[in-house]
Amino acid sequence: MRLVTSERVRVRRSPERGHYARSDIHEVLDAAIVAHVAFIEAGRPYCMPFLHVRVGETLYIHGSTGSRALRILQDGAPACVTITMVDGLVLARSVFEHSANYRSAVLLGRFTPVPAEECDAALKAFTNRLVPGRWAEVRRPSPKELAATSLLALTIDEASVKVRTGPPSDGDSSDATDDVWAGVLPMTTRLEPPEPAPELRHDLPLPQSVRHLYAAANNDDHRGGR
Amino acid sequence: MRLVTSERVRVRRSPERGHYARSDIHEVLDAAIVAHVAFIEAGRPYCMPFLHVRVGETLYIHGSTGSRALRILQDGAPACVTITMVDGLVLARSVFEHSANYRSAVLLGRFTPVPAEECDAALKAFTNRLVPGRWAEVRRPSPKELAATSLLALTIDEASVKVRTGPPSDGDSSDATDDVWAGVLPMTTRLEPPEPAPELRHDLPLPQSVRHLYAAANNDDHRGGR
Repeated sequence: MRLVTSERVRVRRSPERGHYARSDIHEVLDAAIVAHVAFIEAGRPYCMPFLHVRVGETLYIHGSTGSRALRILQDGAPACVTITMVDGLVLARSVFEHSANYRSAVLLGRFTPVPAEECDAALKAFTNRLVPGRWAEVRRPSPKELAATSLLALTIDEASVKVRTGPPSDGDSSDATDDVWAGVLPMTTRLEPPEPAPELRHDLPLPQSVRHLYAAANNDDHRGGR
Repeated sequence: MRLVTSERVRVRRSPERGHYARSDIHEVLDAAIVAHVAFIEAGRPYCMPFLHVRVGETLYIHGSTGSRALRILQDGAPACVTITMVDGLVLARSVFEHSANYRSAVLLGRFTPVPAEECDAALKAFTNRLVPGRWAEVRRPSPKELAATSLLALTIDEASVKVRTGPPSDGDSSDATDDVWAGVLPMTTRLEPPEPAPELRHDLPLPQSVRHLYAAANNDDHRGGR
């Protein structure tokens, strides 16, 4: 099932890097933690970072009800959600061909407030998306905490993904005969060892959620995945 | 020297996380590789990722002259540049207090095209910022390549930084008596081993720039820095 490929989201520069399948955008959304959300206030553009989670064809963001950005977005202002990961630096033989390997998704649409009866499921998705299984280990939100939380949803519809992978593109140019090293410096995001809160009881073991997360991350390392 | 602290960039939620010294914003700009730049086209907000470099009080972005975003920005459209790094996941005893450690800079202003006589220095800064010393190792841009490159500059002026660090904030709440593990899962970006371009001569050694970059990154690891 393809996304709506409007002129507004179509990848025009390097069109061969553009992707429009829902599976492509899901992959980028699910791999990244932060979404940058652009909106207009008083005729000026703003862009704010949010943690996000995708559930099916819905993208959720959340924060304090006091957030200016969320107040503007929940009123249905046009939004652009951009999610970018840099996967490596691309070193070519010429300055001009230097580049980066990246995955970037752009979604257009309008957010709507999440109905009260769906907030629990959305917050569970947020929590378990970052640390699978964490929801079951911690205290659930109280009515007062829920009232202080703004949860917004955007239907994934008008969107595109732009991806660059692979080596520098001057391998068959006249520069390639120069004695200049060229290649990719891959970049990955890693979890470093957990840091217990300072006042935590020392005999409290790492919870299952954290142990599983680190085991999965280490397996990824061994597979060379990112 | 402080930045212009307008109402538009003042950190309102969690104001204790707001910073307005130029050194604070320089630190975030210099630590991150990607900037998200928001602008308005035909009354709609857009947000696009760019590599960036700071030189003094100027932030540069660049790309193809064919880039729609750069064409709009070079005409002086209002822009918002947001730069975000996630430094860790913050696990609390309650869902509500879960958070992330992050550094985020927001800059408002308008880009201007970089004059032709300054392009060389700006491109050198770009190249050496990502891989120090790389500029001296590779072929410089030709007049034709320069003509195809759009380089824009924004003066750092109206800006703020928002930072969260440290453990979860429920250490002195009633939740803290629960037997629930709480703490931080630090996240870092790492360079993985270089991948030579497939057609590269096998006897071509890693260049000094890349060797130094990896040596510096490994030293950072040993110091536990990020």
